[in-house]
Amino acid sequence: MTLQQKQQQQTYEPLTESTAIELAKKLNLFSDQAVLQSTEIGDGNLNLVFRIVDQENNQSVIIKQALPYAKVVGESWPLTLKRATIESDALKIFKDIAPDFVPEVYFADEELAITVMEDLSHLIIARTGFIQGNDYPLLSAHLGKYLARTLFLTSDFGLKPAKKKELVGQFINPELCKITEDLIFTDPFFDAPTNNFEQELLKEVNQIWNDQQLKFQVALLKKSFLTDSEALLHGDLHTGSIFVSEEETKVIDPEFAYFGPIGFDLGQVIANLLFQAIANSEKREVIYNHIEVFWTTFVKDYEALWNSQNEEPLATTEGYLSFLLEKALKDAIGFAGCELIRRTIGLAHVADLDGIQDDTERIEAKRTTLSIGRELIVNRNQFTSIQQLLSSL
Amino acid sequence: MTLQQKQQQQTYEPLTESTAIELAKKLNLFSDQAVLQSTEIGDGNLNLVFRIVDQENNQSVIIKQALPYAKVVGESWPLTLKRATIESDALKIFKDIAPDFVPEVYFADEELAITVMEDLSHLIIARTGFIQGNDYPLLSAHLGKYLARTLFLTSDFGLKPAKKKELVGQFINPELCKITEDLIFTDPFFDAPTNNFEQELLKEVNQIWNDQQLKFQVALLKKSFLTDSEALLHGDLHTGSIFVSEEETKVIDPEFAYFGPIGFDLGQVIANLLFQAIANSEKREVIYNHIEVFWTTFVKDYEALWNSQNEEPLATTEGYLSFLLEKALKDAIGFAGCELIRRTIGLAHVADLDGIQDDTERIEAKRTTLSIGRELIVNRNQFTSIQQLLSSL
Repeated sequence: MTLQQKQQQQTYEPLTESTAIELAKKLNLFSDQAVLQSTEIGDGNLNLVFRIVDQENNQSVIIKQALPYAKVVGESWPLTLKRATIESDALKIFKDIAPDFVPEVYFADEELAITVMEDLSHLIIARTGFIQGNDYPLLSAHLGKYLARTLFLTSDFGLKPAKKKELVGQFINPELCKITEDLIFTDPFFDAPTNNFEQELLKEVNQIWNDQQLKFQVALLKKSFLTDSEALLHGDLHTGSIFVSEEETKVIDPEFAYFGPIGFDLGQVIANLLFQAIANSEKREVIYNHIEVFWTTFVKDYEALWNSQNEEPLATTEGYLSFLLEKALKDAIGFAGCELIRRTIGLAHVADLDGIQDDTERIEAKRTTLSIGRELIVNRNQFTSIQQLLSSL
Repeated sequence: MTLQQKQQQQTYEPLTESTAIELAKKLNLFSDQAVLQSTEIGDGNLNLVFRIVDQENNQSVIIKQALPYAKVVGESWPLTLKRATIESDALKIFKDIAPDFVPEVYFADEELAITVMEDLSHLIIARTGFIQGNDYPLLSAHLGKYLARTLFLTSDFGLKPAKKKELVGQFINPELCKITEDLIFTDPFFDAPTNNFEQELLKEVNQIWNDQQLKFQVALLKKSFLTDSEALLHGDLHTGSIFVSEEETKVIDPEFAYFGPIGFDLGQVIANLLFQAIANSEKREVIYNHIEVFWTTFVKDYEALWNSQNEEPLATTEGYLSFLLEKALKDAIGFAGCELIRRTIGLAHVADLDGIQDDTERIEAKRTTLSIGRELIVNRNQFTSIQQLLSSL
């Protein structure tokens, strides 16, 4: 434990429902006379989440506090409180850049690991909504716009180099990055104790562990995650990090934010939409359409920013933009493949697949996921358009 | 000016020959009774360099102090004093990693921008020695060993990921990186006021400025320099940053150190050896042999480190190491091409070329340099061995 962490622990204390109300009052977020109700609505694994509601007018805020440990599938390990600051700093930057798609932060305190922000309880987590059978027709275009703005405007194309480098330093995030490095790029490809898969998949899993061609490509993708400081990523952009309604899309929880390859965020979105297409064949066309709209919107908006707000003198060079967009597609496809595999046999699963009640169907869906995952990783450099990807599935 | 810079300026003061002696005494680097002589031996462009000698026993140290500005070809601009800390921190790390090839640092002070270090006055700057007609038979193997160690042991393969990320933050170096970004990757490819070339080269220069294929590849190399955080680079590894004798090689002046693509340091070495081969055709075979020995030594030592000290579980994957070494070669060739061009038509030149007395010969050598530079950049991905590169020249 560093000295800083020790000092932090002396003042850090988990909030309770009543001290959360005291904090909200102290911050003057409500009128002095307000009668406030506080409810802890987090899942308790990583963070406390209090919803504070003014009983009179139903105005509300969220107070989120990081816990000094993580609990995933029963396991518990210490985890830096600094992630609360990474998250609130990233939310503020993303809110500036893409205001329609990010909740507002009212207050943040590094020592207490607290972020006070806009209450989005009128929305639903996209993964949950999809599983319930809903569709969110604007979701894909919104995510395309969000990522075009965040990934361009935090890159060396959208920022002066010195400002970008300052942000790289601010968002050095070793502990959260290590979770991704281990759980997405390493453990699923070895017989690691963190892995978690159904015994019926043992044959496929063994194939993965012995697939040198696959592991070589995963090694390259992991190296890209470790070294390519292209832009400030959300870092964990699955459908559980997105609040939606028919009209609105809000991207939350950027505690994994760091400067990495833009294909990573793009690929997480594609993979987490694909889980829905794989789990429900009758939704396939709707989901494929989402993926296509997501990509084409991203490209269109990124191109517009490239042409209007570019800081790079070499940006006008013939072929440069199209090369970068094609590279982003190939990278995204590869990273999507890693996400498909790790959510099937690694530590953290998705309800899209695990929630399939029929055993045969579920195992079949997982086999399909693993097979597509492998194809995307190994053949990613053969794809030159999103349509080509979709028609290959 | 930031607050920190303001505070720094209040205590920072340039040393004189006599205050340099006082500092050496205060640091107990000599006996109390020592009679010390102090001589300023720097070129005064970026730094003060004092050589402090004990008159009795000839023991000596160097005191180097950064100046708050840079002067290049008459132009002067303010330049961060923080570069002294980057330099002393990098020297300490490189000394730990490659002790035979790095001077020892005895003392460093961030506020005064001072580094006190081993005196290497018994050696000569490699560029100067080469121009004088000397050869340094061990230089290339030494540089191969030095870079194998520094580039492997500061990468994600040689370090735990958290330690590497901490160092990335420590070596964020925007002002010095910007000099490289502008003077190597940008200005020479546009009609920029910093460019400096002989009028006889105007036709070739215009061709470069209008060569979209070349500029596209330069854009990719610049992006790599801006975003690929592979390892802690020296960042300015030309033959003017190397002290040599027949037996010894010491790499100095890492004030441009930052985490970047390993091909950059490798390519600087290759390009700065090539200037000698181009300037003196009778030395060509000797220099080509140096380049070959440099590369094969680098590969051999890097492979040994890869196999014995690797932190990456995926490192054993078939084909991964050979892919990375081939990528390093292609990158190095591309970066070498940029160095060849910028030293011929950009702001900062090399004495190897500018020192050729005969006008026709000099212009011819510069034309050759530009032509080789272009070939290396545009065709870098076709090279799979150092021998193939050398036989193409």
